[in-house]
Amino acid sequence: MRVPAGFGTRIGFGERPALLVVDMARAFCDPSFRVGADQTPAVEAIAELLPPARERGVPVYYTTVAYLPSGVDGGTFVRKIPALRDLLVDDPAATEIDARIAPVEGEVVLVKKYPSAFFHTHLLSMLIGDRVDTVIVTGCSTSGCIRATVVDAVSYGYRVAVPEEAVSDRWPEPHAANLFDIDAKYGDVVPLAEALGYLRALPPVGPPRLAAAASG
Amino acid sequence: MRVPAGFGTRIGFGERPALLVVDMARAFCDPSFRVGADQTPAVEAIAELLPPARERGVPVYYTTVAYLPSGVDGGTFVRKIPALRDLLVDDPAATEIDARIAPVEGEVVLVKKYPSAFFHTHLLSMLIGDRVDTVIVTGCSTSGCIRATVVDAVSYGYRVAVPEEAVSDRWPEPHAANLFDIDAKYGDVVPLAEALGYLRALPPVGPPRLAAAASG
Amino acid sequence: MRVPAGFGTRIGFGERPALLVVDMARAFCDPSFRVGADQTPAVEAIAELLPPARERGVPVYYTTVAYLPSGVDGGTFVRKIPALRDLLVDDPAATEIDARIAPVEGEVVLVKKYPSAFFHTHLLSMLIGDRVDTVIVTGCSTSGCIRATVVDAVSYGYRVAVPEEAVSDRWPEPHAANLFDIDAKYGDVVPLAEALGYLRALPPVGPPRLAAAASG
Amino acid sequence: MRVPAGFGTRIGFGERPALLVVDMARAFCDPSFRVGADQTPAVEAIAELLPPARERGVPVYYTTVAYLPSGVDGGTFVRKIPALRDLLVDDPAATEIDARIAPVEGEVVLVKKYPSAFFHTHLLSMLIGDRVDTVIVTGCSTSGCIRATVVDAVSYGYRVAVPEEAVSDRWPEPHAANLFDIDAKYGDVVPLAEALGYLRALPPVGPPRLAAAASG
Repeated sequence: MRVPAGFGTRIGFGERPALLVVDMARAFCDPSFRVGADQTPAVEAIAELLPPARERGVPVYYTTVAYLPSGVDGGTFVRKIPALRDLLVDDPAATEIDARIAPVEGEVVLVKKYPSAFFHTHLLSMLIGDRVDTVIVTGCSTSGCIRATVVDAVSYGYRVAVPEEAVSDRWPEPHAANLFDIDAKYGDVVPLAEALGYLRALPPVGPPRLAAAASG
Repeated sequence: MRVPAGFGTRIGFGERPALLVVDMARAFCDPSFRVGADQTPAVEAIAELLPPARERGVPVYYTTVAYLPSGVDGGTFVRKIPALRDLLVDDPAATEIDARIAPVEGEVVLVKKYPSAFFHTHLLSMLIGDRVDTVIVTGCSTSGCIRATVVDAVSYGYRVAVPEEAVSDRWPEPHAANLFDIDAKYGDVVPLAEALGYLRALPPVGPPRLAAAASG
Repeated sequence: MRVPAGFGTRIGFGERPALLVVDMARAFCDPSFRVGADQTPAVEAIAELLPPARERGVPVYYTTVAYLPSGVDGGTFVRKIPALRDLLVDDPAATEIDARIAPVEGEVVLVKKYPSAFFHTHLLSMLIGDRVDTVIVTGCSTSGCIRATVVDAVSYGYRVAVPEEAVSDRWPEPHAANLFDIDAKYGDVVPLAEALGYLRALPPVGPPRLAAAASG
Repeated sequence: MRVPAGFGTRIGFGERPALLVVDMARAFCDPSFRVGADQTPAVEAIAELLPPARERGVPVYYTTVAYLPSGVDGGTFVRKIPALRDLLVDDPAATEIDARIAPVEGEVVLVKKYPSAFFHTHLLSMLIGDRVDTVIVTGCSTSGCIRATVVDAVSYGYRVAVPEEAVSDRWPEPHAANLFDIDAKYGDVVPLAEALGYLRALPPVGPPRLAAAASG
């Protein structure tokens, strides 16, 4: 199966990227949870992306997932996937970001309740404030929250890049099928090395003027 | 590959459905367009769903896709899929709904520019005005706009049902892969016969009181 | 100044209301905060609305406001209103709901960062899940978050009612000016007694079937 | 009445503005329509802003309002304001932009159905694609669609400027009251001369790299 003519154009990276780390919470990285899997290769790939991003001032945003005990904040979605009810608000053992790729001081962790990192979260307003033009999407799962986040990111007008080794899934088939769809229609699926090369060659991203003024 | 424990709960139909017919425009149904394919089986399945829906007062919404000649209204998305540029505003030969399942007087055709039928369209406000609780999603393509629409529908809190024969794709693999993801995480993939049986057994859906008052 | 012809139609209450209590956090109700004012009359009006709402199963949603110490999650908005920076995440002395109208077990408090209670919060998906058709908006301030919430509520397709005594503002002029705009264009401004009468006469609102099934 | 301490900080203009012309359709500019008024002063102010914006490559977006004959696409909002039903899809006599400030080739006119220019329109994705950081809001009415658009613009993270002479209302009181609220909480209300001075001093705004590449 090949991407047909008129689909899958390479978009390329822009000038002001952001790095998203989607749902790399402890429950998703731990096979003893119903939603969990061993995601070590993706964790290691993200661990390679974080230092060059941080050094150049690229904003890094994390998401995690957490519901009230009643699940009312997850609606039909958590009824479809009861396994998500294992992630409870105020339970760091499930919802905290995996320690190997933990956020540093000042990085924002957004709590989401639906597949897309943009849905009902403050991510979009922060990306606009950062004047971002490119969203690098990493984390899990390729066939769930990565896919949904990528679709929203391109719909909002961003260039989207997905470093292949930095996203993962419970199974190989949905992982491959969703990377095919993403590359054909929504964002550039790129080797990790290409994303690393881009970040390392990036001039330091100064803060937007507004933020600069506000910090003075 | 089986849906694991804690995923894929059957949600079931509610009391006030809406029927969505996504992107069954002439360009998508005509293999001579770069975005097109022969979608006759899905067209025929939708043609079976429409009469019982209309007879019971179930609201029917269509989407089509159309861009300005500059493509500026399609952003990064149409740069990724240049084939979409074949669908131009004011070109009914590409953007009109396939005549075999055309809207009837009073049914709304929404022009969308991104994958989800909800994204930057007025669909959501109309569903809320209709007091809908269930969205039946049909049309094309399974691996594109159907998937994106389903994800948004469940995120907004709706029950989602996808009659399997009423959605289609250019190729069998992404069709099957996306139905798997949808059934595991977002909506119920059901046989066409089940959706037909539900609609035929549905009591007539009266208008919401506000609409009733306004028409008086 | 009178509402002109063709504006300000009375919409009326529907069958499934929700009660919103916007931003009645301690900081807004305490004149020692820069954002605060004595809101006792509105607090007392809300305290009258809560019991009949709860008795009939009307969903009650609260909002509060809280920012990270960096303020990055408030963007340009908190730069425009630095007084908002007094409301910090994890500071109940500022962000907790006023004790006189505190939520009861199971009621949801949404943390918002922008004027509208709908903006980047999960409110909308919960209202859809509740099959709400009417939003009763209370809280503060009339010229800020009440106005913004009302505009979004009517845009999403809801009937909107604002019990006049249950909203308040720092000053009388913007309070009156915004009630005029709301009543002319977005929602019905009604006496508290009318909202109370409606709630007291309402048949108990059963849960939507999905929620009922899920609790079994 | 003065803006209190901690409110109304001056935000200032950024580096990449967009100019919005909200609802300056013929019906709104013609007192013979129920929604209309003589808006000549605002039309003349906008006519002064357009040339320097266009000369420097600043994107210009227009909105108009238009409903289906059934009004179903306007929901509760058009039931509240039946006068809006005078604006019908495909009726240029009502919905076309006033000829004195008509769009030029390539400028986009968005059809909206609710107060905010952002609500269910493609505006946001285009602003992100343009990498805009500042939204200059003009048009009508100050107490309706201008106010709603300003609130959404600041919520999405933009700097907002409202040139005072370039917005108008049916009456002086709501005009003044809403400018007070906007300046205190959402955007900078500035003299027309200041906005003109900013635009005339602005270096030509190059296209974002993606657009530049796409046009090659």
